[in-house]
Amino acid sequence: MKIKKVCILGAGTLGTRVALQAALSGYQVSIFDIYPKALENSKKLMQRIVKQLADNSGLEDIAGMHAISTITFTDNPNVAIREADLINESVTEDVEIKNSVWEQFGQISPEKTIFTTNTSYLLPSMFAEISGRPGKFCALHFHDVFYSKVVDIMPHPGTDPSLIPTLMEFGRSLEQVPVLVKKENPGYLFNSMLLAFIGAAGKLLTGGVGTLEDIDKSWMVNFHMPMGPFGILDSIGLDTAWHVTHTLPDKGSQAFAALLKQYVDAGKLGEKSGEGFYKYPNPAYRHEGFLI
Amino acid sequence: MKIKKVCILGAGTLGTRVALQAALSGYQVSIFDIYPKALENSKKLMQRIVKQLADNSGLEDIAGMHAISTITFTDNPNVAIREADLINESVTEDVEIKNSVWEQFGQISPEKTIFTTNTSYLLPSMFAEISGRPGKFCALHFHDVFYSKVVDIMPHPGTDPSLIPTLMEFGRSLEQVPVLVKKENPGYLFNSMLLAFIGAAGKLLTGGVGTLEDIDKSWMVNFHMPMGPFGILDSIGLDTAWHVTHTLPDKGSQAFAALLKQYVDAGKLGEKSGEGFYKYPNPAYRHEGFLI
Ligand SMILES: NC(=O)c1ccc[n+]([C@@H]2O[C@H](COP(=O)([O-])OP(=O)(O)OC[C@H]3O[C@@H](n4cnc5c(N)ncnc54)[C@H](O)[C@@H]3O)[C@@H](O)[C@H]2O)c1
Ligand SMILES: NC(=O)c1ccc[n+]([C@@H]2O[C@H](COP(=O)([O-])OP(=O)(O)OC[C@H]3O[C@@H](n4cnc5c(N)ncnc54)[C@H](O)[C@@H]3O)[C@@H](O)[C@H]2O)c1
Repeated sequence: MKIKKVCILGAGTLGTRVALQAALSGYQVSIFDIYPKALENSKKLMQRIVKQLADNSGLEDIAGMHAISTITFTDNPNVAIREADLINESVTEDVEIKNSVWEQFGQISPEKTIFTTNTSYLLPSMFAEISGRPGKFCALHFHDVFYSKVVDIMPHPGTDPSLIPTLMEFGRSLEQVPVLVKKENPGYLFNSMLLAFIGAAGKLLTGGVGTLEDIDKSWMVNFHMPMGPFGILDSIGLDTAWHVTHTLPDKGSQAFAALLKQYVDAGKLGEKSGEGFYKYPNPAYRHEGFLI
Repeated sequence: MKIKKVCILGAGTLGTRVALQAALSGYQVSIFDIYPKALENSKKLMQRIVKQLADNSGLEDIAGMHAISTITFTDNPNVAIREADLINESVTEDVEIKNSVWEQFGQISPEKTIFTTNTSYLLPSMFAEISGRPGKFCALHFHDVFYSKVVDIMPHPGTDPSLIPTLMEFGRSLEQVPVLVKKENPGYLFNSMLLAFIGAAGKLLTGGVGTLEDIDKSWMVNFHMPMGPFGILDSIGLDTAWHVTHTLPDKGSQAFAALLKQYVDAGKLGEKSGEGFYKYPNPAYRHEGFLI
């Protein structure tokens, strides 16, 4: 089936980016949020992203602004869903909220609409039934759309297999590299690996094996990367990291979760709060002379 | 103390590289091996590396060839150790071999000589006593010297703390970023993290969650890296990877070790044997069009 109209649910960090890329790729796009303020902020964020893309990657400013102007920003679910071929849901990572959104849109969506969720750590099977359309339900999980251009396609056991090639093609049309997650797995492919290496870094720190700077330097120099695990944690957000880590049962993860909790309780959430393991906007790992 | 003369034990993959960099950095260098053939090959490898550095990083060919000409290649331990301020040991990763080498050089080394080992997964405390000089014994662990320029400095509990700044400075003089591993830890800092994320990748593969290509794509695209975990495994060598993995007790590691064993038994050791997870010299992950 040919996808023409895309409906994004949730106008936060991720929904905004997916909606913008879809518009840039020529789709008709609507973006829905229950908070009008979120919709306003979403449009402003799109404008900022377009300026950045114009500076860094040769997108024409005017083409970007035009793409934004084609998007329908709405808090009216019926307007949002009109003639949509595909929903990509990016509402708050909360089972109750996602349940209620899928129940609502399951009832009002046209029969043709494909349902996809962007959940980071929940599973599509948790929402497939309540959407009323399990066969047409699949995870379609973006990373950050403009820098990390990979999209995970993760069916649940009831997903109609014919959906997969459609979603792969849709991902490619959004300039992403599609990867197939053949079985439900919290963390898809990349986040499972990310969690493992960040957990190992956390254990090195809490076990007193290395300073956070030395652990980051090891990673950065060996892999020629601009940041190490603690810089990455600051960009993910230490609250999110705590959320994921504190449920892991092993002693090492528990010790690391306890350390993350201290930062979170002190309001140090990482880059977004101005401080985490490092201080922003000019963290030590970006200083000349960090790697000596 | 000022280090002037460096003695490298073992003229294999790593000893050759450390010896060459030390000579390029202006140290007097000797390199010792029990096999004359190994010494010959070492000199040839140095010439190849110098050519590569001349092509890629602006080293003057002639300066490189001159540096090689200053190095003493010898199978005579007394010649090798003469007036050495520091030994960096890079003999085969085997407890028996390293024990006998440290017993031998403990007896013939000048009193001033600092003893360092490059062991990847063994610990300096295993050889400190037999060297007869535990206070002057420390791990000084390079990665690949010319591409991954980090050096781990890992004392054992009996290492004289005054050695640390000397080794940090020595590491810097070899154009490496020194990091301190405050406690003995098999895998230092980086290898602990590497093992964790590669283990997670192995579990995704053996668990049927993703194909090896999709797992690699996720890593490469998210981190803008030229290879993913299975490409990295091919460059490490699947025999080495099996060696490290098969001792880990958990079910996931055991399943991955069993898979690695199949490759090793089939003679597929990775890049060095022409085939591992990918085929060399032109593996799929370097093909244009891999990332779509
Ligand atoms: N931020 C990321 O980098 C990222 C990456 C991959 C996946 N995700 C996933 O995307 C989803 C959204 O994450 P985010 O970071 O954009 O969160 P966010 O908090 O920035 O945005 C969530 C948005 O959902 C809206 N919302 C809440 N309840 C709603 C409802 N009932 N109907 C419609 N909208 C509602 C909120 O107003 C908010 O604007 C989560 O499932 C998250 O796991 C996020
Ligand atoms: N190859 C790497 O990338 C790497 C990286 C970091 C650390 N290391 C460590 O460096 C050490 C050497 O590894 P390698 O990869 O160079 O191995 P290698 O097999 O290439 O070289 C080992 C050398 O030691 C020599 N040797 C054996 N017994 C000897 C003895 N009694 N006296 C003197 N020389 C002897 C061998 O002839 C051989 O030339 C190991 O401890 C390894 O863990 C290797």
